[in-house]
Amino acid sequence: MPTTEIIYGVSPVLEALRAGRRTCHEVLISLKRRESTVALISKEAALRKVPVNFVTRADISKRAGADKHQGVAARVDLYPYSELEPMVRAAAERPEKAFLLVLDGIVDPRNLGSLIRTAYLMGVHGVIIPRDKAAGMTPSAVKASAGASEYLPVAQITNLARTLRYLKENGIWVAGIESEGDKSIYSNNFKGISIAIVLGSEGKGLRRLVKESCDFLANIPMNGKISSYNVSVAGALAMGEVVRQRSEAHCKNRTE
Amino acid sequence: MPTTEIIYGVSPVLEALRAGRRTCHEVLISLKRRESTVALISKEAALRKVPVNFVTRADISKRAGADKHQGVAARVDLYPYSELEPMVRAAAERPEKAFLLVLDGIVDPRNLGSLIRTAYLMGVHGVIIPRDKAAGMTPSAVKASAGASEYLPVAQITNLARTLRYLKENGIWVAGIESEGDKSIYSNNFKGISIAIVLGSEGKGLRRLVKESCDFLANIPMNGKISSYNVSVAGALAMGEVVRQRSEAHCKNRTE
Repeated sequence: MPTTEIIYGVSPVLEALRAGRRTCHEVLISLKRRESTVALISKEAALRKVPVNFVTRADISKRAGADKHQGVAARVDLYPYSELEPMVRAAAERPEKAFLLVLDGIVDPRNLGSLIRTAYLMGVHGVIIPRDKAAGMTPSAVKASAGASEYLPVAQITNLARTLRYLKENGIWVAGIESEGDKSIYSNNFKGISIAIVLGSEGKGLRRLVKESCDFLANIPMNGKISSYNVSVAGALAMGEVVRQRSEAHCKNRTE
Repeated sequence: MPTTEIIYGVSPVLEALRAGRRTCHEVLISLKRRESTVALISKEAALRKVPVNFVTRADISKRAGADKHQGVAARVDLYPYSELEPMVRAAAERPEKAFLLVLDGIVDPRNLGSLIRTAYLMGVHGVIIPRDKAAGMTPSAVKASAGASEYLPVAQITNLARTLRYLKENGIWVAGIESEGDKSIYSNNFKGISIAIVLGSEGKGLRRLVKESCDFLANIPMNGKISSYNVSVAGALAMGEVVRQRSEAHCKNRTE
């Protein structure tokens, strides 16, 4: 088993260096990159004593096994997954209520990365993904996350129904996003409670056992004849509603 | 100039047939597709007297110039853009207030398609995109829209600042989504007014002249060290807030 991998893209490499959660062994920059980008990345690498090698775009494509690398890549340790229990404990110890995202088998690394990016910007405390039959935090997911993967804790678990029970035992409400949900996300209450938002896989939604393990199911209102929102959009809307309701409570408290 | 193009993917072909907004000349299905998909598409094609040809996956890849076609493609007339004035008039005549989406130079067809898909599901009445320096409704945008492009009117315009003035003259409030916005989307009022949501291009945001042409600028709250939301996520959050506020007004009216 390799112990390192090649991540690529300006943001992923920059944020991996800055976050420092995994060791960076080498940075690769295309000879044709703009000076400003070269300077920015070289500076961050130098601060951490990481060697920078200037190579051709083709070299980067070959080593990364991908073309959309923007002329920048790095050899880093494998993705540093978090353990579930410390993640949940840390979320519970936050001054605000816990806010977690659970993904039931997202298979497209671009959707996974997009959800990680949005979750991070929404202030989510951790993301839980299954180890099997799901995209992991591969370099292409890291790329799609715009580097948010380097800050947000992500835990891989083996049994999702059991994990949801564990969350509930720890005082976290488990909300499945599902077109059959009784009420819309807008009429469900997310204020003043610890919450885990659970999203199903692309096209298939939540599995039956996972659905049954949720405290409640919420739908996202929609019009029209086509099937449904893309999962990364559905996730953004659900997480955004938690953020909105919590900020509303906050404003109200401040004026009281 | 060619007058037809090849669209691809199960949903785009199905929805193009069902919507009937552009003539479909021929449907191509891979010999290896599952029976249920073949039956579904063949039925829709037969209803409209469109010939179906069974070919190899490689033939479809070659004619579509793309690989992710799911074994289904169709030769159809070029995308039927709408004219701005009738689109705005039709939106103004709706029983609910007008709801438009304006894109200031989205360059990635996947983002364009994703925004079209979300806008359609949100009940947006029309989308306005620039003719130059922006992605158009190409087959790859149509694919990313999951076929929503076949229902939602999309108008191409040449001068965005002038178009925004036109919208304002027609009683539509123009809201730019912008990190420098004074207030968040959650504290802006979108209720009871006709609205056009304006989104900037990937990475660059709104151009200065476009920003100055907006009635107000609204930001989307975010945490964290990475740059910003992906534009299709930002658009979904902004459109979702309009839908939420309008549904809230609706519920209130109903209980009164």
